[in-house]
Amino acid sequence: VNLILLDSSEIDSDGSASLSDARAVHLRTVLRVKNGDTVRVGVLGGPLGSATVVGVNADGVAVWCQLEQATPPIAAVDLLLALPRPKVMRRLWPQLSALGVHQIILTNAERVERNYFDTHWLAPDVYRPLLIEGLQQARDTHLPHVSVHRRLRKLVEDNLEALSPSTRRLVAHPQSLTRVGDALPDQSRRVLLAVGPEGGWNAFELQLLERHGFTAVAAGHRTLRSDTACVALMTLVHDALRR
Amino acid sequence: VNLILLDSSEIDSDGSASLSDARAVHLRTVLRVKNGDTVRVGVLGGPLGSATVVGVNADGVAVWCQLEQATPPIAAVDLLLALPRPKVMRRLWPQLSALGVHQIILTNAERVERNYFDTHWLAPDVYRPLLIEGLQQARDTHLPHVSVHRRLRKLVEDNLEALSPSTRRLVAHPQSLTRVGDALPDQSRRVLLAVGPEGGWNAFELQLLERHGFTAVAAGHRTLRSDTACVALMTLVHDALRR
Repeated sequence: VNLILLDSSEIDSDGSASLSDARAVHLRTVLRVKNGDTVRVGVLGGPLGSATVVGVNADGVAVWCQLEQATPPIAAVDLLLALPRPKVMRRLWPQLSALGVHQIILTNAERVERNYFDTHWLAPDVYRPLLIEGLQQARDTHLPHVSVHRRLRKLVEDNLEALSPSTRRLVAHPQSLTRVGDALPDQSRRVLLAVGPEGGWNAFELQLLERHGFTAVAAGHRTLRSDTACVALMTLVHDALRR
Repeated sequence: VNLILLDSSEIDSDGSASLSDARAVHLRTVLRVKNGDTVRVGVLGGPLGSATVVGVNADGVAVWCQLEQATPPIAAVDLLLALPRPKVMRRLWPQLSALGVHQIILTNAERVERNYFDTHWLAPDVYRPLLIEGLQQARDTHLPHVSVHRRLRKLVEDNLEALSPSTRRLVAHPQSLTRVGDALPDQSRRVLLAVGPEGGWNAFELQLLERHGFTAVAAGHRTLRSDTACVALMTLVHDALRR
């Protein structure tokens, strides 16, 4: 943990806050803070800053926050992801928020098994702590927006422009010969990256996406597991936007 | 699994082979092969090809191999990795071989805990199946070479040039402003990428590496978990070599 995240409702108007959950345990047992120590903090959706420890006991840790640093920029990437199997989705949550994503749009596809949608890893109470874990790793404060869609076609035709307006659209397709960087000549524009299921998008899905403005790109000719592929593609998009 | 890997000793001179381990179980229960079906195969360290199923029963699967395709190229990247904690190392093995690495050189560093070296994930019998899992995912046949070194300084001063000769050397350092692609102008040269422990290389280690020809690069300004960082950096190196 490189940052302790607080909700703005937890901080009093004078900057004081009392932590009593896993964050307090981390401060006490991993960082072993004592009165007068300072730790990096951030407010969800807000600025970064530092907190001075003003009290430590078995019930929790009291801190006094000075939120004098800027709010981090909003990530320039949205992700449209065909729902992977539950174990992979669990692994992806913290990695996605650490890499930096504004919006995670989960969708069905032919090669997504229907029962994947029943997993508890799609419950907000379950994935929220995992997203926060990634934010705390990467020192970000913006919790990604998450939405789950059961029908790809309806999503692409009716909802996508409102969800991810004016983004440059890329679809990962292992057979493409276009490198991610070559498909992103304009670094000022936000990106919507579509990543398919383990077996890939089918021909209809790929056509649907291309008809709606998605350019096919590849992270190389090797077939990767979907979590590795997702990290690889997000990395290439962020790198291209940083040139 | 996108490829079934065999050892050359398993294949008779007429191309026939009998599988009775996890590969046979995969063929029978996941791919549900029957006589006459063909599956993609490869020989460890050798060519790719196809195999025709000629017998299926509870004991195993008999196949007839035609290894008529080329041997895949050797990966152009070597990895020098400060040993991560056991759980992370376990996760990395299949991802590294899937991404493509010729050599995995594991080392100590100040911020590596000594007991990490005691993990069973460093036993060849334990990591070999994980490396093969990644090769079968990515359709590669070259098992990465693995070596474990307890002293970083001795490794860098005495052994590295023999282990990874004439490679362009990069060291991941979050504070660097150099993008991986900008540090690799010459795509014809192999790369040795050094990735530090969770808390980073210390100042002495970084100096030691820079004195021995390593250029500091970063995958961005965000601090990533070491497995995510490793996948991100390997991706950027491969991408730069593919321009």
